[in-house]
Amino acid sequence: MPALPPRAVIREVGLRDGLQSIATILPTARKREWIGAAYAAGIREIEVGSFVPARLLPQLADTAEALACARTLPGLFASVLVPNLKGAERALAAGADLLLVPLSASRAHSLANLRRTPDEVVAEVARIRAARDASGAKALIEGGVGTAFGCTLQGRVDPAEVLRLMQALLDAGADRVSLADTVGYADPNGVRRLFEQALRIAGDRFWCGHFHDTRGLALANVCAALEVGVTRFDASLAGIGGCPHAPGASGNVATEDLAFMLAAMGVATGVDVPRLLALRAALAEWLRGERLFGALARAGLPKTFAAATTDA
Amino acid sequence: MPALPPRAVIREVGLRDGLQSIATILPTARKREWIGAAYAAGIREIEVGSFVPARLLPQLADTAEALACARTLPGLFASVLVPNLKGAERALAAGADLLLVPLSASRAHSLANLRRTPDEVVAEVARIRAARDASGAKALIEGGVGTAFGCTLQGRVDPAEVLRLMQALLDAGADRVSLADTVGYADPNGVRRLFEQALRIAGDRFWCGHFHDTRGLALANVCAALEVGVTRFDASLAGIGGCPHAPGASGNVATEDLAFMLAAMGVATGVDVPRLLALRAALAEWLRGERLFGALARAGLPKTFAAATTDA
Repeated sequence: MPALPPRAVIREVGLRDGLQSIATILPTARKREWIGAAYAAGIREIEVGSFVPARLLPQLADTAEALACARTLPGLFASVLVPNLKGAERALAAGADLLLVPLSASRAHSLANLRRTPDEVVAEVARIRAARDASGAKALIEGGVGTAFGCTLQGRVDPAEVLRLMQALLDAGADRVSLADTVGYADPNGVRRLFEQALRIAGDRFWCGHFHDTRGLALANVCAALEVGVTRFDASLAGIGGCPHAPGASGNVATEDLAFMLAAMGVATGVDVPRLLALRAALAEWLRGERLFGALARAGLPKTFAAATTDA
Repeated sequence: MPALPPRAVIREVGLRDGLQSIATILPTARKREWIGAAYAAGIREIEVGSFVPARLLPQLADTAEALACARTLPGLFASVLVPNLKGAERALAAGADLLLVPLSASRAHSLANLRRTPDEVVAEVARIRAARDASGAKALIEGGVGTAFGCTLQGRVDPAEVLRLMQALLDAGADRVSLADTVGYADPNGVRRLFEQALRIAGDRFWCGHFHDTRGLALANVCAALEVGVTRFDASLAGIGGCPHAPGASGNVATEDLAFMLAAMGVATGVDVPRLLALRAALAEWLRGERLFGALARAGLPKTFAAATTDA
């Protein structure tokens, strides 16, 4: 049996990937509450928003304020998504710890979503790297390869193309690279295969697995990635986010379900699951009318779940 | 990486484990439709009901009729649950292919649910074996060890006790043994450990993994069991069944989600997933007002899911 890593990191992305996909605009004060409570529950990495034009994503217009809040919490590592150099310059000025640049391995999805080919995004990463270096900032640059398991527009995405783009991102100066199953097409077998190769290419520069739970396989996919040595996962509280191509479907894997599973498996995350469930209950109030996901909040913790907090 | 088995069997248990836990009484004609459509979708093992007193489970009062229907379909292997010798005699008379005798490894749960200690159930299995042999029937006897990962009454259940009871069932004459996570307490790591030991004890006499999705981990648990060589899984269409101890929680892993995952992983089941989804839509009509589960029905199949039917 594959030995599991003793610890793993959960990056909360609900404030970005979650909120950008739902109608409700969460007020900045609530975002501050969310960030503070997640921190109190042991979360140490949060993607607080995106530096995109506010007219495109009004839900994330206050990303600079959310980032400023995150920066007041000692040891909290704050990421932001940046679609281009302009967003990266804002993120660097605002003091983000990590800039996530999304790239879609599906050419069709890339053109539809980012209005650029995947290789044009690689070139933009090189410019972002140059700007980062010139600024003297310590922020890391993460190149996130999305639609890594297929896409709703073009269907199949060739794993060789995914790995080629990951290598190109590294060559262009990305400090870290990640793989994302943007639309919930991945299965545990495919995850094992692709992540194993990705880790072989990127080594310590491999950062994160990002799994949508669109078809219920996200936790099984996390397990498969864990088994090949991935130790950082994106998750969204209450599974918020949805999928524009599958109305009614869930978003990212639910943070509370992931934290519970990892704790139950003996993989330490530092997250206090009961406190996270309390925050989830608050979020459910803030987002009344939005569809929430996740099984743990319905069922509660098992009687056998003693270790409320595992050491990170 | 562990090699996955090339094929696996899905046993549909929604007609028993599912229906027994919900209020709606499905008419016999609908059960016949369900059995016929599941068969047409490639399902070849169905647990059609329980031989328990009708006053206890009126939902399953027509188990003999459901079994008679199943027996008309060539190659369909029909199981029934029997709680005791009396039920076993009815099942043998009705021509079941397999008699599942449930045993709860949790002493507290066993006394509360079956009004017997686990070892008294083992003794009953010996009597059922004698009756089966005397009858000349070819029906198999399956001893199913439930609450194998803990229970809502006593909490922790010692894995050593689970394995002792499994060995005792084999010694008492059970032809097959299984493990069930009755209340959704299992995690993939625990599953790997316990099923590995169970397979070592029971060898070819190990039959089935039964996972409830109460906390969302059922598919991940299936993957863990697959990796150690389990090749038969219980599942309930639309995840019906719930959990009496966790109101609002889901029941068994959803058949359609399991069939999709296995197909996506390249594990052949013989199940035609689109046909199964059509049956699930019919079931949703029949069970209007009941809470259904499963992610695939919300999201639909991926564009990349070409192999509608995999060879069994």
